[in-house]
Amino acid sequence: MAVSDVEHLIQLLAKLPGLGPRSARRAALYLIKRREALLVPLARALTDAADAIRTCSVCGNLDTRDPCAVCTDPKRDASIVCVVEDVADMWALERTVAFRGRYHVLGGTLSALDGVGPDDLNIPALVARVRGGDIKEVILATNATVDGQTTAHYIADALAGTGVAVSGLAHGVPVGGELDYLDEGTLSAALKARRPVS
Amino acid sequence: MAVSDVEHLIQLLAKLPGLGPRSARRAALYLIKRREALLVPLARALTDAADAIRTCSVCGNLDTRDPCAVCTDPKRDASIVCVVEDVADMWALERTVAFRGRYHVLGGTLSALDGVGPDDLNIPALVARVRGGDIKEVILATNATVDGQTTAHYIADALAGTGVAVSGLAHGVPVGGELDYLDEGTLSAALKARRPVS
Repeated sequence: MAVSDVEHLIQLLAKLPGLGPRSARRAALYLIKRREALLVPLARALTDAADAIRTCSVCGNLDTRDPCAVCTDPKRDASIVCVVEDVADMWALERTVAFRGRYHVLGGTLSALDGVGPDDLNIPALVARVRGGDIKEVILATNATVDGQTTAHYIADALAGTGVAVSGLAHGVPVGGELDYLDEGTLSAALKARRPVS
Repeated sequence: MAVSDVEHLIQLLAKLPGLGPRSARRAALYLIKRREALLVPLARALTDAADAIRTCSVCGNLDTRDPCAVCTDPKRDASIVCVVEDVADMWALERTVAFRGRYHVLGGTLSALDGVGPDDLNIPALVARVRGGDIKEVILATNATVDGQTTAHYIADALAGTGVAVSGLAHGVPVGGELDYLDEGTLSAALKARRPVS
């Protein structure tokens, strides 16, 4: 291929998660053929994102303003804070429309293997935020993995003296899930946390 | 989600082939987190592509100059022209490094159903190019589909009076392919076109 500009574009697209070299080639060609409809708008959207998006200094969310729209929304309950590992987890919770409090994005999990300690994450800021004032409950919504649960335990310990209520997401059978396909850990957690049928 | 800039970026990314809404979300987040390493370079590469890439007036290839690098390369044999449906097919042939002639990109196939006639494709330009001069052989490398083969037949007819040699790609067993998994059409084509083993 002689076209170095196209080659360069393909190499960059191939770095996106979900796109390999072959699909990056397809995507590049697709973009070039749809210059006005897609290529130019996407170039502009990326430039805008690079210029405008910053990390919220309160919660760690990504937004065009700081503090972010979630932190400044007066309709949201400032007394409940949901702690998540990543902005993607926050988006997942937002899609449920079941939570109207605020968030705190850690930016990862504690990991002895990868050398990630509490100070590498957004944990000191969370402790300061809780000590600072009006928060009544902290929901630990880290992933149900070993690292996620370790991080949740660490945060629960760090918040122990503050008098704030600390809760975690419920474990159990996924909605629409079949028992036959569930792992033993989830099933025994669901059994242990069984509820009276009203 | 309150972040309309991010939302807009996700919607555009989701239009790329191979990316659905969920993977577009992942890609957007991946980009925003890698601002300097990926987001800014990709925005620039897309802007460059939008500004610079044009269609070659000779062969229909996409390049930053017109005529394109393939058409102006003095090391390539101008007497052989390989006719392909799409720029992606041309790229696939270039990756083989087995062809050192020039190309002609049709931009699709004839299709009565979709109302695509010869004048909607790059066919008149091909006929004019062949009548114009030094071309000795035209290789029809359209896809081995019904539409591709119909288009190849049409082009062969259109070039009938020009005295140029017209050839097509060989059909047969793919290299590394197992007979057991091949369709009957390919196998009988391979049988019919059998060659003496030297």
